[in-house]
Amino acid sequence: MFEAVCLGRSMSKSEFKEQESVLRGKLLDAQFALKEKDKAVLIILAGVDGARKSDVIDALNKWLDTRNIQVHAFWNGSNEETERPFYWRFWRRLPARKTIGIFYGGWYWQALRDFTFGNINDRDFDQACHLMRETECMLHDDDMVIVKLWLHIDKDEQKKRLKSRRKRLKAAHVPVTDAKIYKKYDDYINAAQRAIRITDNVRCPWHLIEATDAYYRDYTAGQVVLEAMQKAVGEHRSDERRRIIHKTTLAVEADKTVLDELDLSVSTHAKDKETLKKRQHQLNSLAWECFDQKRSAVLVFEGWDAAGKGGVIRRITSAIDSRLYRVISIAAPSDEELAQQYLWRFWRQIPRAGYFTLYDRSWYGRVLVERVENLANEQEWGRAYEEINNFEEQLVDHGMLLLKFWLHIDKDEQLERFKEREVTPWKNYKITPDDWRNREKWDAYKLAVHDMVARTSTDKVPWHLIPANDKTLARVRILETICDKLASELD
Amino acid sequence: MFEAVCLGRSMSKSEFKEQESVLRGKLLDAQFALKEKDKAVLIILAGVDGARKSDVIDALNKWLDTRNIQVHAFWNGSNEETERPFYWRFWRRLPARKTIGIFYGGWYWQALRDFTFGNINDRDFDQACHLMRETECMLHDDDMVIVKLWLHIDKDEQKKRLKSRRKRLKAAHVPVTDAKIYKKYDDYINAAQRAIRITDNVRCPWHLIEATDAYYRDYTAGQVVLEAMQKAVGEHRSDERRRIIHKTTLAVEADKTVLDELDLSVSTHAKDKETLKKRQHQLNSLAWECFDQKRSAVLVFEGWDAAGKGGVIRRITSAIDSRLYRVISIAAPSDEELAQQYLWRFWRQIPRAGYFTLYDRSWYGRVLVERVENLANEQEWGRAYEEINNFEEQLVDHGMLLLKFWLHIDKDEQLERFKEREVTPWKNYKITPDDWRNREKWDAYKLAVHDMVARTSTDKVPWHLIPANDKTLARVRILETICDKLASELD
Repeated sequence: MFEAVCLGRSMSKSEFKEQESVLRGKLLDAQFALKEKDKAVLIILAGVDGARKSDVIDALNKWLDTRNIQVHAFWNGSNEETERPFYWRFWRRLPARKTIGIFYGGWYWQALRDFTFGNINDRDFDQACHLMRETECMLHDDDMVIVKLWLHIDKDEQKKRLKSRRKRLKAAHVPVTDAKIYKKYDDYINAAQRAIRITDNVRCPWHLIEATDAYYRDYTAGQVVLEAMQKAVGEHRSDERRRIIHKTTLAVEADKTVLDELDLSVSTHAKDKETLKKRQHQLNSLAWECFDQKRSAVLVFEGWDAAGKGGVIRRITSAIDSRLYRVISIAAPSDEELAQQYLWRFWRQIPRAGYFTLYDRSWYGRVLVERVENLANEQEWGRAYEEINNFEEQLVDHGMLLLKFWLHIDKDEQLERFKEREVTPWKNYKITPDDWRNREKWDAYKLAVHDMVARTSTDKVPWHLIPANDKTLARVRILETICDKLASELD
Repeated sequence: MFEAVCLGRSMSKSEFKEQESVLRGKLLDAQFALKEKDKAVLIILAGVDGARKSDVIDALNKWLDTRNIQVHAFWNGSNEETERPFYWRFWRRLPARKTIGIFYGGWYWQALRDFTFGNINDRDFDQACHLMRETECMLHDDDMVIVKLWLHIDKDEQKKRLKSRRKRLKAAHVPVTDAKIYKKYDDYINAAQRAIRITDNVRCPWHLIEATDAYYRDYTAGQVVLEAMQKAVGEHRSDERRRIIHKTTLAVEADKTVLDELDLSVSTHAKDKETLKKRQHQLNSLAWECFDQKRSAVLVFEGWDAAGKGGVIRRITSAIDSRLYRVISIAAPSDEELAQQYLWRFWRQIPRAGYFTLYDRSWYGRVLVERVENLANEQEWGRAYEEINNFEEQLVDHGMLLLKFWLHIDKDEQLERFKEREVTPWKNYKITPDDWRNREKWDAYKLAVHDMVARTSTDKVPWHLIPANDKTLARVRILETICDKLASELD
């Protein structure tokens, strides 16, 4: 692969200067045009050590309007980052729409290093690369312009540069680049070829740049960025493009969904209240146990309006020490949230090691309310199932305990509860015209729930469908499920 | 102080149940009314260990609409928190307008503990308390409703409770409350009295609550929160209230300001370009040195339009490894930022230990553009000087290197540069009608700059006023100032 790169290309200073003045004008035009189109640009700047990525960043900073550019490196993770799934650190730094982000090394840096030094095996490395690919495609689908640059220099050049840098800076000052990484050049190049092969595709292609001559390197990088931006200016929003997606509706009739299998007639035993108390005590200890073992938990609550999500959540939070949990109630997104892929606002709330986050409604809004109310188009909610499964798998693979509950009641029960809310002073705020409107779309929601369960109830993260006509029983079941899961997963 | 609290007050279950149903209705009304009024509520819940703050939080969660409430504890700081000034952890969790935040222990917890266990002396403790007071008053001035609750139990009761809790949970599960803290009860109470005395004032008063009887405790806490909220509903925005502020304008004539003292005729020597290169090399090493020594730097750039801020910043960033800095260009705030006190959006960008943040424009916008353009009223920008000094002092006291520069050019020079921007393709985007409008208000800005320097050029953080008609010279001076400061502060 890299044989095709090392061709000794260079550019004279005068030619560079001449081209530069043309290039920078065009780059600015493209930058403003993309801003106008509400697009985010992510430039992933990778390459072998010593290729002088920093210099390319300086050049881009010189040419572009820096007010909308942020550069991020990910070499020195804080504990807030290392205690969360790997991609959390990237999500928190993703460029918002109308802005440009430059990721120094991107998500490639860590895996390339780990593989080069034998810290991870082939399979892990490939898996990591596939996740990169999926992440990039997902962001691309969300209309992000992704430009991937690989800066290449050959073995001798690298050795020369790293030795001279080492002389210039004291060893202590080079915490990133192991001073003798040039001895691993061949391994690194092999890893890079493999990563590039897996992640190179027509939606998010790689651009390999010979980085020996500085003028050629900077000009070529600028040119590649320019072309990618110009191409994106001409493109329509990706969801307007026709693309084949799988048939999105699986349920045929609204009265034959997975919810119709639930037995709503079950009701409380006399001793259930006692069981609830016992489980709450157990949960209190288990939560501290999670803290000790640095395991975090994400609990997701979805369900019909008035199904009792709030009540269940309160039974859980009153059991857990208030230093250990946060409840996130999903309401309308802020403008910072709207400027990102829709999962961003859920990623940002993912707990540190040892803590609980409870989501009162969640990312499933994408395939429920956003689908039913046409707030997302079919392309968007259609691909969301896969995106969600992917997201949840990352949480679980990191060692998080993830449980998701659907609280199910029937239409009559809902009506009764709505009425009760209307007459009880302190429940009155919970009932709004929206609730009545949603109720009218009961069947559409039911189909959406069916599809959601069919597509996102996975081996790692199954849906727990809870009959909730009887409140106490629902609470007991959920507490039991949580406690048993925690108990089985903790050491 | 606490003698007046321990009076053995209690409430029967039946009375509690009766009052509760009235209270919760009123609390909800007040919550929605404050939301309507765009106000944030901060409930600081402090008290002796064992007073069961968690139970009070459960009660408030039960009574209020939890969708707008977040509970935060600050007992287990991440390195992202400990590497920044102490208040950063609070700023990032402050409730936005229309929401309620409950701070478990608030900013009191740490200082009370440290003082009780003799880790800090009297003076440090008092200073910490004064900072709490100032912070609370500042937030109050920004229209936040602050409710401070102190839950009290006596010595015997505490001992009993902590022993029983210890039995219930394994020792390892109580990382927060030292199992034998009850032996320090008297010291703790003394510290508390001192903290309360310093921080109790008519704007942000304390409410001491006897917490022995659970019903009395919860009901009283609810009642206190209710009254504070109801009072705030009736109040006008604090900036509409008349309050005596110091005379805000110090400069009398626009041609006799501190800027008129600057000699703009100075110009580049032949060897200045060389000096610049040398200083850039020095800065590269110093930045790595900062990283090694975990010192962070905040560099603030203000100046006239076209004074050359961007050019200076680029000379600095091209010198520093791109993994070590971020540039924050201040543009219009997002809605999340607008929902907070104006310093919030600057606090959120403060670097971790070892990194640089460069602000292209800054918090001084409050006393410059916001003042001149009437975007802030006189109350708001009038008190901003003190708030800013306070903020900067916190950064410096934490060990950050903070430098602020005003780049000064004269009106003729600006005109020339504006014209140049209009004719140079890649500079064209930098000139907008706004720039021309600002230029017309030159004298008003000059007075604002004068006041700003007069009020915020302090012993710890002086303003560096840089003659910038000559670009190279300005760059050299600034690089020199930064390098010399870093060199003198680093070990």
